[in-house]
Amino acid sequence: MKADILIRGCTVLTMVHGEVISKGMIVVKDGLITYVGEEQRTPPVDADEVIEAQGKVAMPGLVNCHTHVPMSIMRGVAEDQELEIWLTRSIWPLEAKLTAKDIYDGALLSCLEMIKNGVTCFSDMYFHEDVVAMAVEKSGLRAVLAPGIIEGGDPERGEHMLEEAVKVVKKYHGYANGRIRTQIGPHAAYTCSPNLLRRIRDVALSLGVGIHIHLAESRETVRLVRRMYGKGEVSFLKSLGLLGPDVLAAHGVHLTRREILTLARYGVKISYNPVSNMKLASGIPRVKEMLEFGVTVGMGTDGPASNNSLDMLETVKAASLLQKIRYMDPTVIPVKKALEMATIGGARALGVGHMIGTLEPAKRADIILIDFRKPHLTPVHNVYANIVYSARGSDVDTVIVDGRILMRDRVVETLDEGEVRRKAQKTAKRLLSDRL
Amino acid sequence: MKADILIRGCTVLTMVHGEVISKGMIVVKDGLITYVGEEQRTPPVDADEVIEAQGKVAMPGLVNCHTHVPMSIMRGVAEDQELEIWLTRSIWPLEAKLTAKDIYDGALLSCLEMIKNGVTCFSDMYFHEDVVAMAVEKSGLRAVLAPGIIEGGDPERGEHMLEEAVKVVKKYHGYANGRIRTQIGPHAAYTCSPNLLRRIRDVALSLGVGIHIHLAESRETVRLVRRMYGKGEVSFLKSLGLLGPDVLAAHGVHLTRREILTLARYGVKISYNPVSNMKLASGIPRVKEMLEFGVTVGMGTDGPASNNSLDMLETVKAASLLQKIRYMDPTVIPVKKALEMATIGGARALGVGHMIGTLEPAKRADIILIDFRKPHLTPVHNVYANIVYSARGSDVDTVIVDGRILMRDRVVETLDEGEVRRKAQKTAKRLLSDRL
Repeated sequence: MKADILIRGCTVLTMVHGEVISKGMIVVKDGLITYVGEEQRTPPVDADEVIEAQGKVAMPGLVNCHTHVPMSIMRGVAEDQELEIWLTRSIWPLEAKLTAKDIYDGALLSCLEMIKNGVTCFSDMYFHEDVVAMAVEKSGLRAVLAPGIIEGGDPERGEHMLEEAVKVVKKYHGYANGRIRTQIGPHAAYTCSPNLLRRIRDVALSLGVGIHIHLAESRETVRLVRRMYGKGEVSFLKSLGLLGPDVLAAHGVHLTRREILTLARYGVKISYNPVSNMKLASGIPRVKEMLEFGVTVGMGTDGPASNNSLDMLETVKAASLLQKIRYMDPTVIPVKKALEMATIGGARALGVGHMIGTLEPAKRADIILIDFRKPHLTPVHNVYANIVYSARGSDVDTVIVDGRILMRDRVVETLDEGEVRRKAQKTAKRLLSDRL
Repeated sequence: MKADILIRGCTVLTMVHGEVISKGMIVVKDGLITYVGEEQRTPPVDADEVIEAQGKVAMPGLVNCHTHVPMSIMRGVAEDQELEIWLTRSIWPLEAKLTAKDIYDGALLSCLEMIKNGVTCFSDMYFHEDVVAMAVEKSGLRAVLAPGIIEGGDPERGEHMLEEAVKVVKKYHGYANGRIRTQIGPHAAYTCSPNLLRRIRDVALSLGVGIHIHLAESRETVRLVRRMYGKGEVSFLKSLGLLGPDVLAAHGVHLTRREILTLARYGVKISYNPVSNMKLASGIPRVKEMLEFGVTVGMGTDGPASNNSLDMLETVKAASLLQKIRYMDPTVIPVKKALEMATIGGARALGVGHMIGTLEPAKRADIILIDFRKPHLTPVHNVYANIVYSARGSDVDTVIVDGRILMRDRVVETLDEGEVRRKAQKTAKRLLSDRL
């Protein structure tokens, strides 16, 4: 039987128990990985597409657990500002004006950027996720889309946004050959009422999808929740039944050890977003302790307006380094652990650990090749270290999602790079000029 | 009169008072910048080499204020270890075996990597700086080389290393058309005796060169100095006459406000090395306060074995982000300030602010072009923000040092990339296999 894709001659990191295959081979058929192993021990395979990958390293695609892709068109709009000023004076007034087309242009730009950085799956929370789904479908990426809900003191608005979210979930959960999955995205404990949060919990359960929510991002939001409800954010969510293994909590910067233990007990997943946490001066989450307590932790870039990049290889390095400085201990989050969190850890955080996150037979074929023939990736004493500490998104050479080649030799095959950039630039310019 | 190089059609950041020239032009003649300004206001210029730079941003080359370039061959050898174990079990045993040829291979690899990252000038401290000088000359880069001196309780060794350092200074200060300058590099207060440090101060003054020294890098070294001499590191160096405007102190992580004030008063320069400080869990220096007190601060990558990259655009981002988290304030080290520190700040820290660091007539022509036609550099709301928060070394497209084109369209013209990589890989492999 002829395979679809055969990759050979490369080092393979399966991300299973730290395995490193020196001269590896990967076979892909019907969107699935059918073989991973040493080249020389394998009988010859015939394939439609043979990728000779000498000098490259194959690994599972990177999983970006928390972002807001349409915000790429606001990249650089407002820099070095206090979070509240950033939101109220810069971001929210712009967001209020965003049309579906603007959202699409921004989402497509972010999809393009992520493909070029070796991200094969991302988890998004924003308005108009139906439009984001169109961009995902076109780009060929895999995504978990959570339509965002901000009630902001207006129950009617909250109910309306929940209705819209339900429509998106019903239409897009399992869409595009299963590449698109959905969650429901209540923005945070302080922007949705207890009533609405309970409703969301019920609706999500009945629809069989998870929940994506911001949690304890900054000191201010933690204080706000305490002031509003007289208890900590984790206790508050717990009282509403909002802790569970299908809940993805973004940030978790200001959590006590006790709260982390509660999250672990309920199986809540965390997206750790180190670059955004630094840029907005939110703080440094206790990720070392989360892992010790058995919490599943993935990594995210957060939105391109608070990073300002979707380069998950940058995030992997920042994630490890920031924990080292948090605990004043250079042994924290070593290289293998860091790369696990950015692949299988992220996949598990999104509830798709059975489908992606490692290179193993019967998993979906989400594979990237990193070109090691670069000065900054020379010499190779430790493949993991070179990827985590020395590589950057631009070293990703080939990207395969669901068995389809999205990028080859850094040329994206599913999108017209020039056109996507031009449209996004035009949209961004219009958005800003309107502001005057 | 015909110019050597004419660059036109690009955005120009001169790094003088935050100036941004939209359709700029730069003229280079005999290694010097002779004109910078708007294209349309300028009479036509004839040049041997015309660079059409539409879609690109021209700025001064990045200045890497603290590194140990030969250590690139140890990149990835020992990861996620305690500093003392890292040094005593991994790095020092390897260093003891390094030959001049190994040093050369490593230095050349680092020069190659820096050119590809838009670094045009670096400041190095290591053994065999005479060999590093050969690599610098060949690569076309600019450098300030400080032969390292570690006495380690052996006065004879210290005296010998000082003699060798003097030889390097005499031969290479002003070498290669002035591209190479030198300093003397006593490793640190705790590895050189007071006697030797005093001798070094005198010798440096008599030779007219500066001093490059590690300062307060970790809690342990600070404690060590206090134990050895009963005073803080800054007081100790002050008592030896070792504070002055010609002294470049690397790190300065664990300094009190009072110590920072003393450094400011004496005009001591600081190299801030955020990525290494995080990776080795050294701590976070008080750079915001240093700047408030008027200390000149440049940025460095530190050696490629403790980073593990020589990408100064990564360092610029990390430098700003790490200060934000240090002070829990997102307004600290805003984008213009960050980029200033990586260019003119660094040049001043190395005592060459009169020669390089800005794009102005009569300065040496150290210029880089960054290609903005990339998804992650779209849209352009804020050129500084895109460079500091979104760009990475691989976006640098063209590098000019002293009026000579070292890289064009990412192809390095002074070095054979494949050969440099292969030799370094071979040397690295041999070095490690010997260890067994």
